[in-house]
Amino acid sequence: MSVPVKKMHLNLFVLNTGHHEASWRHPETMPKSVTDIHYYTRLAQMAEQAKLDSLFIADALVLTPAIQHKIGGGLEPLTMLSALAMGTERIGLIGTVSTTYTEPYNAARMFASLDHISGGRAGWNSVTSVGDVTAINFGRERHPEHSDRYEQAKEFLEVVKGLWSGWEADALVADKQSGTFADYSKIHPLRYKGNYFSVHGPLNVARSPQVFPVLVQAGSSDAGKELAAETAELVFTAQDTLEHAKAFYADLKGRMAKYGRHADELKILPGFSPIIGATESEAREKEAMLAELITPDFGLIRLSNSLEIDLHRYPLEGPVPLEDLPSIEQVKGQKARFEMLVDMVKAEQLTIRQLIHRTATARGHYTMVGTPEQVADVMEQWVKDGAADGFNVMPPYFPGGLEDFVGGVVPELQRRGLFRTEYSGRTLREHFGLKHPDAQPVVTTT
Amino acid sequence: MSVPVKKMHLNLFVLNTGHHEASWRHPETMPKSVTDIHYYTRLAQMAEQAKLDSLFIADALVLTPAIQHKIGGGLEPLTMLSALAMGTERIGLIGTVSTTYTEPYNAARMFASLDHISGGRAGWNSVTSVGDVTAINFGRERHPEHSDRYEQAKEFLEVVKGLWSGWEADALVADKQSGTFADYSKIHPLRYKGNYFSVHGPLNVARSPQVFPVLVQAGSSDAGKELAAETAELVFTAQDTLEHAKAFYADLKGRMAKYGRHADELKILPGFSPIIGATESEAREKEAMLAELITPDFGLIRLSNSLEIDLHRYPLEGPVPLEDLPSIEQVKGQKARFEMLVDMVKAEQLTIRQLIHRTATARGHYTMVGTPEQVADVMEQWVKDGAADGFNVMPPYFPGGLEDFVGGVVPELQRRGLFRTEYSGRTLREHFGLKHPDAQPVVTTT
Ligand SMILES: Cc1cc2nc3c(=O)[nH]c(=O)nc-3n(C[C@H](O)[C@H](O)[C@H](O)COP(=O)(O)O)c2cc1C
Ligand SMILES: Cc1cc2nc3c(=O)[nH]c(=O)nc-3n(C[C@H](O)[C@H](O)[C@H](O)COP(=O)(O)O)c2cc1C
Repeated sequence: MSVPVKKMHLNLFVLNTGHHEASWRHPETMPKSVTDIHYYTRLAQMAEQAKLDSLFIADALVLTPAIQHKIGGGLEPLTMLSALAMGTERIGLIGTVSTTYTEPYNAARMFASLDHISGGRAGWNSVTSVGDVTAINFGRERHPEHSDRYEQAKEFLEVVKGLWSGWEADALVADKQSGTFADYSKIHPLRYKGNYFSVHGPLNVARSPQVFPVLVQAGSSDAGKELAAETAELVFTAQDTLEHAKAFYADLKGRMAKYGRHADELKILPGFSPIIGATESEAREKEAMLAELITPDFGLIRLSNSLEIDLHRYPLEGPVPLEDLPSIEQVKGQKARFEMLVDMVKAEQLTIRQLIHRTATARGHYTMVGTPEQVADVMEQWVKDGAADGFNVMPPYFPGGLEDFVGGVVPELQRRGLFRTEYSGRTLREHFGLKHPDAQPVVTTT
Repeated sequence: MSVPVKKMHLNLFVLNTGHHEASWRHPETMPKSVTDIHYYTRLAQMAEQAKLDSLFIADALVLTPAIQHKIGGGLEPLTMLSALAMGTERIGLIGTVSTTYTEPYNAARMFASLDHISGGRAGWNSVTSVGDVTAINFGRERHPEHSDRYEQAKEFLEVVKGLWSGWEADALVADKQSGTFADYSKIHPLRYKGNYFSVHGPLNVARSPQVFPVLVQAGSSDAGKELAAETAELVFTAQDTLEHAKAFYADLKGRMAKYGRHADELKILPGFSPIIGATESEAREKEAMLAELITPDFGLIRLSNSLEIDLHRYPLEGPVPLEDLPSIEQVKGQKARFEMLVDMVKAEQLTIRQLIHRTATARGHYTMVGTPEQVADVMEQWVKDGAADGFNVMPPYFPGGLEDFVGGVVPELQRRGLFRTEYSGRTLREHFGLKHPDAQPVVTTT
């Protein structure tokens, strides 16, 4: 008697022409398709045919001069996912919305609306956004401090969950005979008063199939992990090695008990960016082809940002100037990313050009090059070793890299019994084996 | 030689089960479909088959206890229209977004995104929203004063137009060879600093087919008409008689010259809600059937709101208590609506119940009962007499009232040469004969 193997979950991270920085220069990709909904629909349908749990769209609220060398300017997630809902039937649709620069009442109704439109397939990646460059698009001079952003995120989550839970399941009556459209005693105002938000409610969109979207987070700081442990149902994370991924997994799941949550109520999906070939050497050729297309101009901007120093002043073939970098305490942006880069440089004595190449593949996420079997081996190992409940799949370029994955790796995982061959559920929560929200209205008295 | 007749424009105002207040109780309507995207898709497709210029979705940012007797709780406009874009090919898609309770950067990118998704079919009805009941969902205690809201609306329009115009037509290069994705000298930041909004830009969505959505307004106050004369391309308005409609039309078009605009650059569409039957008596029967379904409970709430007095304290069969009403100066809400109701009561000596019935049909918009020919006669007359450039069609109930309109009235208008028999354009601006925006980036120096 064989013990049934634990199935893994797969999310497709849809990003322009792919996750390799140079993917838009690849002969096969169509960079002007960033605003073409039919392009994205084809990717979504491909992922759905392979029975993936979901797809995910990242978002930022700023455009920087980096667009000179870096693909951007694409669609906004909520409008895009609403359109994708019409071209697909089962796959989950996860979009990013910022808790720092959005009104929670507006976000709540848009996600409720997306959940209706998609028949219960909505997911929300809540982020606190990045940098003063974003703040200045929203009437502020400075991006709020990290801790303030997370305080605000916490309130935001309380507000939107409260709004979504305000409609009891049988509130919408629509009784033509008596002329009662809704039972207002079953639609509860929220009357939330916080430091950041005061929202009275109730929400003006009826209860949606999932009550609320699957709650996704991707924070890596202590505050981020704590908020995820308390509230998230899905976590995306960038882990560059199996060991780091295991440590992250144990850390995050370990924080859940104190919030009365079971480890299974949150699924962790590390990013995973495989370059796949029928043979190893074919895969290596694909890797080399992409590497040749890397633009050092953009790499310099990107690394100067992450390392908070102007690398243009140093020779490209010279060493990364560790001695001139700020100390970790001085870093204003993403500390985890800064540390990862410094560790990499120290361990491998990299030149600036080498560091650009090493990090052009998938922004610090795990990358590998190999055959479908080799890729499946690694995925199997990560899940068995307690490093992942599944993966955030980040094809290096579209559609080729996705075709390689769904045509080669997915069937291999299915043969091994590690991935579904059919959808059994309808909603995104059902795909991930998450329980339906136990939505209790916040009952306040006037 | 016959002079070619001026063609009219037709917009379908999509609203739940229809514009008659009791439509949701009509045996044919499906009130639980308010959250069903497939229901709306069918209506949109019906309108598109009849070659209508556009459809329009209204919006409010609040839910009140009136939902007990009044249909509500439906989808949010931008997500809904993005989904409808996928089920249609030519019809314009106009959505309402508030300038009082939305971040302009977010609104700008969502509309740009919708314009991409729909291939240039987006329109935006900008409104300033209503009442303290809305304010309390957005961290405020009071809805801003009318004049402040319009000041803010004006700034909001400047910001979003500036953001949309910031991308020159050939900014997105995507030159794989040189590694240049965009020509940043052709993507202009806005650097807007106003009293309500400070937005740096540039927008992070590439220039869309129409550059920006068709700008729609529906204000009826002096400030509203002034803003429309300066900026709007389409105006919806509620006019209860031909005379009122002519006066409004002449007034609004007359205000445009001082902004250097030609009268043709703005189209005026009064609301029009016909109850249509193959014979006049069949139409009367349909009217009577709907009238019977009116719920006085909701009528009382609605009129108490508009007249700013609690009508529950007066007998339903007694006269409307004109002597107890506030004076027009004291009215806090929509003054135009208040005046229209008072005029109606004075002219016809109505009881409360009669006023409820008279106003249940389409909230003060022009309503009529008749055959397709009679309906077409009125429409023809309004356009010829300079009262309208077309109509905001408000079927009393869906889908029946729309079927009657597209099956009976549209063919009759087409026979008379008053309405297109085929789309000639692709974008919403083309349908309405509006010129493509002459988008000049706001060039500021640092
Ligand atoms: C897979 C993945 C996707 C992410 N997507 C976004 C995004 O779309 N928008 C965003 O502002 N941040 C995004 N982030 C950043 C995280 O939300 C978070 O800000 C970052 O990991 C730093 O962690 P911290 O906020 O806890 O300091 C993403 C991170 C990961 C790992
Ligand atoms: C056809 C039509 C549609 C409207 N749609 C909306 C709407 O969706 N949301 C809203 O808040 N107001 C809507 N309004 C109200 C107007 O935007 C405006 O507030 C009202 O006519 C009062 O005019 P004023 O704001 O200039 O005082 C609509 C008005 C009309 C005539």
